[in-house]
Amino acid sequence: MPQLTMKKEINVIRDGERSAVGDEVVVEAPLTIYLNGQELVTLLCTPDKKESLALGFLRSGGLLSSLDEVAGVRMSEDGNAVEVTLKNKSNLVEQLYGKYTITSGGGKGVVFFSALDVVPGPPVPEGGISITAEEICSLMSSLQESAAIFKATGGVHSAALADTRKIIIFCEDIGRHNAVDKIIGQSLLQGIPLHDKVLVCSGRLGSEILLKAAKLQLPLLISRAAPTTLSIELAESLNITLVGFVRDRRMNIYTHPHRVKK
Amino acid sequence: MPQLTMKKEINVIRDGERSAVGDEVVVEAPLTIYLNGQELVTLLCTPDKKESLALGFLRSGGLLSSLDEVAGVRMSEDGNAVEVTLKNKSNLVEQLYGKYTITSGGGKGVVFFSALDVVPGPPVPEGGISITAEEICSLMSSLQESAAIFKATGGVHSAALADTRKIIIFCEDIGRHNAVDKIIGQSLLQGIPLHDKVLVCSGRLGSEILLKAAKLQLPLLISRAAPTTLSIELAESLNITLVGFVRDRRMNIYTHPHRVKK
Repeated sequence: MPQLTMKKEINVIRDGERSAVGDEVVVEAPLTIYLNGQELVTLLCTPDKKESLALGFLRSGGLLSSLDEVAGVRMSEDGNAVEVTLKNKSNLVEQLYGKYTITSGGGKGVVFFSALDVVPGPPVPEGGISITAEEICSLMSSLQESAAIFKATGGVHSAALADTRKIIIFCEDIGRHNAVDKIIGQSLLQGIPLHDKVLVCSGRLGSEILLKAAKLQLPLLISRAAPTTLSIELAESLNITLVGFVRDRRMNIYTHPHRVKK
Repeated sequence: MPQLTMKKEINVIRDGERSAVGDEVVVEAPLTIYLNGQELVTLLCTPDKKESLALGFLRSGGLLSSLDEVAGVRMSEDGNAVEVTLKNKSNLVEQLYGKYTITSGGGKGVVFFSALDVVPGPPVPEGGISITAEEICSLMSSLQESAAIFKATGGVHSAALADTRKIIIFCEDIGRHNAVDKIIGQSLLQGIPLHDKVLVCSGRLGSEILLKAAKLQLPLLISRAAPTTLSIELAESLNITLVGFVRDRRMNIYTHPHRVKK
């Protein structure tokens, strides 16, 4: 059984009291799916049931419809890839081109950017921002107060760009990534520098959102929800302060706690 | 200002009492981004701040780094597309091929399947399943009891395939889609028919998950969380019963309530 959670040393702040504790974090890992010897896609996932995930991904995408079509399913030795071989290989490449090639103008594919696609830039420089635990709690409250669509429907994520005092840009979207991309686009439009700002999120902090922040040299990410192991490791090496589970008067600081003053 | 929520007529069951009420649902809409006249991607999103979303998506993906590089941003008349033109067009096609073409073997892209990529099949046939409100609540409790990684970390979604009585397959993943794809793959591996089963989800029911279920002819989807307008409309036309916000002893039935017996 692969390891699905991992203990990380974190700082917990509760009612102003800071303590160092071990905390279980969900493991996030890449899984590459090969189809008939061709690399098809790399998913970021919880690393169990990998053969099921590969088959289900192909089934969902209409690339196979029953197990009868499958000649073999093989896991790589390192466990990071699953190779699926189909009995009937005719037209597959053509199908793939038709389905996934963005530049063909067919308008059929949706592409998200992979965490693995990003070569992380240099670490975020020191300085930039220094914030108190109280300010973090207050920004999270502001995020929740601003969340009009969420209040009406319960169906969206929200994200905000803030300085230590207040929210500067607020966005909501059904997609976590869209909400962050809206923030990024709007800060471009308004010419707002990001190196001294906070990204405030309602949703989970996966590696992809972390890498978006790193590219923009954002020094501080805070969220009501959980990070993953991969996002913690990236934040560690990129000098980003990652704060999760900001709720009521408590929070977990996963990396670089020095930016959070008592 | 585009409409971001929409009133839908739904059935609410609370402590066994059923009533018809109007409920606000979040709007989900496609937005196609064109870059230098070429169709790049279609995102499903909350339809506001579309220019920001387009620019942020390009910025996140490394296709532009400052507003100085942008010659123009234009919204289509119907509001369903944003066209971004860059000043420097050199190498762009090559970059795009390098970045997004899956079959190039570069292994750099992550592709998700688009709701818009799916031609919905025939509606799910009648029959299949009939369930009581109590059984729905009990399945949701089982899902939460099974959620071991969630309990440890708070960082994952869970999904299950069930009959009216019990969970048959249970999966957890950091990605909502992955959790459902694991279910689909495992049901393929075990040869479990789906036309008389329930898909139980912890996360939101967006159109993409709905279309996955439709392809498999699953008649009933239940979730602790919210659906979107697009998923309700698809469920309506595909004869799928969509039940959301299953919490404590209440739930919202959005479509085809006849499969839920008193």
